[in-house]
Amino acid sequence: MSGTWGKNIKYTIFGESHGEGIGIVIDNLPPGLELGMSNIKSELRRRQPGTNNLNTTRNEPDEFDILSGMFKGRTTGAPLCAFIKNTNQHSKDYDAIKNFIRPGHADFTGFVKFKGFNDYRGGGHFSGRLTAAIVFAGAIAKQLLSQQNISIISHVYRIGDLCDVSMMKEDLLLENCCNLSSLSFPTIDPAVGIAMQQKISDIKALGDSIGGIIEAAVVNLPTGLGSPFFDSLESTISHLIFSIPGVKGIEFGDGFDLAKMRGSDANDQFYIEDHKVRTKTNHCGGILGGISTGMPIIFKAAFKPTASIALEQTTVNINELENATLKIMGRHDPCIVPRALPVVEAAAAMAILDCLPLTN
Amino acid sequence: MSGTWGKNIKYTIFGESHGEGIGIVIDNLPPGLELGMSNIKSELRRRQPGTNNLNTTRNEPDEFDILSGMFKGRTTGAPLCAFIKNTNQHSKDYDAIKNFIRPGHADFTGFVKFKGFNDYRGGGHFSGRLTAAIVFAGAIAKQLLSQQNISIISHVYRIGDLCDVSMMKEDLLLENCCNLSSLSFPTIDPAVGIAMQQKISDIKALGDSIGGIIEAAVVNLPTGLGSPFFDSLESTISHLIFSIPGVKGIEFGDGFDLAKMRGSDANDQFYIEDHKVRTKTNHCGGILGGISTGMPIIFKAAFKPTASIALEQTTVNINELENATLKIMGRHDPCIVPRALPVVEAAAAMAILDCLPLTN
Amino acid sequence: MSGTWGKNIKYTIFGESHGEGIGIVIDNLPPGLELGMSNIKSELRRRQPGTNNLNTTRNEPDEFDILSGMFKGRTTGAPLCAFIKNTNQHSKDYDAIKNFIRPGHADFTGFVKFKGFNDYRGGGHFSGRLTAAIVFAGAIAKQLLSQQNISIISHVYRIGDLCDVSMMKEDLLLENCCNLSSLSFPTIDPAVGIAMQQKISDIKALGDSIGGIIEAAVVNLPTGLGSPFFDSLESTISHLIFSIPGVKGIEFGDGFDLAKMRGSDANDQFYIEDHKVRTKTNHCGGILGGISTGMPIIFKAAFKPTASIALEQTTVNINELENATLKIMGRHDPCIVPRALPVVEAAAAMAILDCLPLTN
Amino acid sequence: MSGTWGKNIKYTIFGESHGEGIGIVIDNLPPGLELGMSNIKSELRRRQPGTNNLNTTRNEPDEFDILSGMFKGRTTGAPLCAFIKNTNQHSKDYDAIKNFIRPGHADFTGFVKFKGFNDYRGGGHFSGRLTAAIVFAGAIAKQLLSQQNISIISHVYRIGDLCDVSMMKEDLLLENCCNLSSLSFPTIDPAVGIAMQQKISDIKALGDSIGGIIEAAVVNLPTGLGSPFFDSLESTISHLIFSIPGVKGIEFGDGFDLAKMRGSDANDQFYIEDHKVRTKTNHCGGILGGISTGMPIIFKAAFKPTASIALEQTTVNINELENATLKIMGRHDPCIVPRALPVVEAAAAMAILDCLPLTN
Repeated sequence: MSGTWGKNIKYTIFGESHGEGIGIVIDNLPPGLELGMSNIKSELRRRQPGTNNLNTTRNEPDEFDILSGMFKGRTTGAPLCAFIKNTNQHSKDYDAIKNFIRPGHADFTGFVKFKGFNDYRGGGHFSGRLTAAIVFAGAIAKQLLSQQNISIISHVYRIGDLCDVSMMKEDLLLENCCNLSSLSFPTIDPAVGIAMQQKISDIKALGDSIGGIIEAAVVNLPTGLGSPFFDSLESTISHLIFSIPGVKGIEFGDGFDLAKMRGSDANDQFYIEDHKVRTKTNHCGGILGGISTGMPIIFKAAFKPTASIALEQTTVNINELENATLKIMGRHDPCIVPRALPVVEAAAAMAILDCLPLTN
Repeated sequence: MSGTWGKNIKYTIFGESHGEGIGIVIDNLPPGLELGMSNIKSELRRRQPGTNNLNTTRNEPDEFDILSGMFKGRTTGAPLCAFIKNTNQHSKDYDAIKNFIRPGHADFTGFVKFKGFNDYRGGGHFSGRLTAAIVFAGAIAKQLLSQQNISIISHVYRIGDLCDVSMMKEDLLLENCCNLSSLSFPTIDPAVGIAMQQKISDIKALGDSIGGIIEAAVVNLPTGLGSPFFDSLESTISHLIFSIPGVKGIEFGDGFDLAKMRGSDANDQFYIEDHKVRTKTNHCGGILGGISTGMPIIFKAAFKPTASIALEQTTVNINELENATLKIMGRHDPCIVPRALPVVEAAAAMAILDCLPLTN
Repeated sequence: MSGTWGKNIKYTIFGESHGEGIGIVIDNLPPGLELGMSNIKSELRRRQPGTNNLNTTRNEPDEFDILSGMFKGRTTGAPLCAFIKNTNQHSKDYDAIKNFIRPGHADFTGFVKFKGFNDYRGGGHFSGRLTAAIVFAGAIAKQLLSQQNISIISHVYRIGDLCDVSMMKEDLLLENCCNLSSLSFPTIDPAVGIAMQQKISDIKALGDSIGGIIEAAVVNLPTGLGSPFFDSLESTISHLIFSIPGVKGIEFGDGFDLAKMRGSDANDQFYIEDHKVRTKTNHCGGILGGISTGMPIIFKAAFKPTASIALEQTTVNINELENATLKIMGRHDPCIVPRALPVVEAAAAMAILDCLPLTN
Repeated sequence: MSGTWGKNIKYTIFGESHGEGIGIVIDNLPPGLELGMSNIKSELRRRQPGTNNLNTTRNEPDEFDILSGMFKGRTTGAPLCAFIKNTNQHSKDYDAIKNFIRPGHADFTGFVKFKGFNDYRGGGHFSGRLTAAIVFAGAIAKQLLSQQNISIISHVYRIGDLCDVSMMKEDLLLENCCNLSSLSFPTIDPAVGIAMQQKISDIKALGDSIGGIIEAAVVNLPTGLGSPFFDSLESTISHLIFSIPGVKGIEFGDGFDLAKMRGSDANDQFYIEDHKVRTKTNHCGGILGGISTGMPIIFKAAFKPTASIALEQTTVNINELENATLKIMGRHDPCIVPRALPVVEAAAAMAILDCLPLTN
């Protein structure tokens, strides 16, 4: 396994849901960077639980300590380590059910991979809580991208059968979407957003959960980034997006719909505008041959429903190798999608940054 | 960019469509392996053009030379280099249109990334022809996997609006699908396969092209392979699948459909059978927490329509920065999907092999 | 730059001499390992300052916290993060001289590389204090090696013009050297050790410092580890040994003396003993073609004199770009070599472990 | 094992001494580079055997083919593969002695590592012949360095007990050493060079071989390249230098002599000259804290005597596990050092290039 990722900037994640805390080491950051602490905090707040009645009531402020790599308020160029202490664990919730592997979770696969030595409390290292470290790193990555005027935006595209307007819509101005991150439940069509929240509320009342899709766009990326084959932009972005717990699908541009299209419709035809080569459409999602076209990179990531549900499920006692039933009490999100928006943006930012030439 | 991929076994791809040829270096193969040349050749033949009237008439046998790493018919343990000479290029086809960047191809992005020095003939290094090298490597990877009884199978799942039976179908026995690779147009439902071929023929007659979806399964993978986060099985597999030209989407298990499901439906509930932990369903596609569950890994990869079409398209002259029109003559597949089956299997085999502990 | 190293097990180092502390993340440790805390502590104590009158009086116990990767006293298989808080810094010592770059230190090169944003206090991230994190990691690596009966031993081979018996000596039984690590000043010849300590004491009284050589052996390494070319055992070991501050040379076996020898003397001739292939001599230091011969790997690492001395030196004020003079007060070792023994062993252990197939 | 090395530019080496040939793939070269073929050829000629009576009479011109990555005389940015066919092998020389493992060679360790499947002819993949591929790559690396005015020079510093003037000599002007590569036997003191050649001739007449030392300098390297710890300049350079067959030691600056020095002598004191920070001396060999000081990087690499000698040696028959004697006939260099000069320069160039920010 590898908790380390990245070629230029290397990210090393560590920690558990119910241990001391979670953290990340970010190596090879440029020196002299002011970290924009309030920006990092507001990104973490987007992911943080307990902010409204749609998500888990585990209320942890996700306050971080910088253990290294900062001096006088700026990065030094040496590895930066951030650590977020765990403060509000109900670890005993898990002792009672430790042998009852939770369907849809990594309890079973983690048990086998780590030979029964995994920290089972709240998923341990597999916990979605680890994504706070990714959001921390992503906030810095986004800051570095914004120095080159590149931004990443996202919205809740689908919850169950409710669907928002797509960023692929031809006459949609992505420039008008820049305030999405300031919304508590970001959708392009506000009415859909209200309906989605009601839907999640209803699902929660049933003790069940629901899946969804996040759509994201990378705006103002220069032409010519990425590579053919093993380091294609799609390879790099998908690698990181699938590092987010719960993601089971990704598509770029028209994605799976391209399977139904003809070349004469799917090809994005070129034209000259202001002495620049542009495409009239963006079916390819801003990537040709693994390399950016200069149009926005647009992708969708599908999330499965939260695995933890209050309804009774059949499972096994891994210790006794016996069939069993399980009702998961604890505090859980009925839908992970809204809190996953900053995580998807963070992963995309880290991926894009890795394709840019470092200027230091 | 990186033409090298892999942690245990490292693959380094090189070559161009209309240069000397294409090749691959495979590093860290176990010594003493008989390569099964006839098997490699039959895998290459599955990808090879000119085998029927559905694909390009560029007829190259894809004969390879082993330049290193073999001695007395077996691998030595030293890097193995295979080289496939180009023999049937019509390079002059490309000189006439070299400034007219082809929509849907990497002509434009490659031109920008490589500052105009890219070999534009037939896409150069971006050519789908490079996938012959991946098929070569994949044939060896599959052979190593088969030593551990792991196999990879695939079929044409969708062409346009025609859809085959899915490997996700609950009562489908994957064991019955093992002969798929021997079919000239592999589908689970033979009738659908005939209709798909007719469809491709019709599209070809129009001078157009069409997209499709390949579905693949990794069978008999042991439980416990893969990792949480950056080296999740989904990350590793998607990284390589998106290295295949034309792929724009991937989903595992129920993938994008999970976005519409509830947790009570999507969770794969556990039970004991023959003292083993199994799941009744496989919505997660055989992966939980980035790690294999022991159920088949099932994924779908969406291919866009072949970019080269005989219909007139608008484009630009990249040299003059002027608008232009273009009809691509040459010899092209109306649908890349059937020839891509061994490529998808090869990429999946390389990915899976990278997650297995090496025994040498 | 990269604070991350390793292929199987990945080590990520972070921290500064006068910041919050120093730490290391160790990724991909096998699960279920009891860490042998007392062993780790005793290794750290070997490196720790303040233990006798030969070294700096900065007295820090190097107590570590495990922030992740442990559960119920065993490794979980998830990344293990260890953190050592700084407690006894005299940071103000450095504010006064921050612009006066210390000869022999990384003050100047760090200033240029990190554009003046480096933490200058006590060398910041460049500090020898970071080697405590390497000793921590090495203690675990040595424990994993000892499971395969491989051990690493070292001694002070040279201080100035005083020289110990070499482990290359033909009739020396390395088995008799296993208690070296328990000695407070490990030499093979005790009398030389006493003389060396007196020498260091004398140098200290002069306000000066002195260099030395550490010789180390890897015992019981199986035949056949390592690789030709880029991953030769010498490449891997030297890479890590040169990561230790102050090392300026390394040689394997007879090393530089081989330049004076003839092939007929330098070749280690083979013979059969107990049905095994052995060599009568070990001029090659246990490595041929980058691969272990099964004889002990023996190498020497040359350390320069401690850069910090109490004598007046000429230097520059980096801020004013003016010539200046400097006397370094603070607390410093007159000779770094004795405290570097566990660091060299740790680096060697990490290197060797990286060449072994992982069993998990 | 890994035949691939490099972070920015990746080098993948392959081939055997008596197989089809040897080659190298160089990935991520900047596009648009004219390769300077005559320069590459002249570098290869420096390494090539058969050029005078001091070395092996195996006379191969080392002519290379570029298999990919070039178009219209320039690099395309895609992976460049160069291949050197074997033409003058006496493979049968080796069949007779294949079971008699040659002392000082990798026959035994390669046999064990590769389980008896290694190509034993002339050392196979372990052969010094592979260094031709490194010289090819190094010629390109040197060309890229020279664009930034960085050059690498080297000379024969020691043969047996004969010693040239060192580049460390304080009043030596390295600028005067730039013609070293044009000399057939490069020494700073011509008289020493003549004596060394006589010495090698004498050794050859005895059927024996002799070792030596190469000293090299990297001139005009900017200040601030390299990193603390794992990517120190010393780590990177030594990693590659120890990839050269026969190297058993490396030291930077005063290297092992620093062990005998005091801090007051060893520290390179700073002063201001032309508004720049410089050091009066260069005991540290141009590297402090793993980072370049702006002074020349100077290092020495110790080579063991050629392992192949005509004198009778004792060895074993690896097949029968019996003691045996062996006289190696074939064609061999009595001293590898003169031919290794361009190899050392190549390895150093590749190492330095990897520490520079890529400009494309």
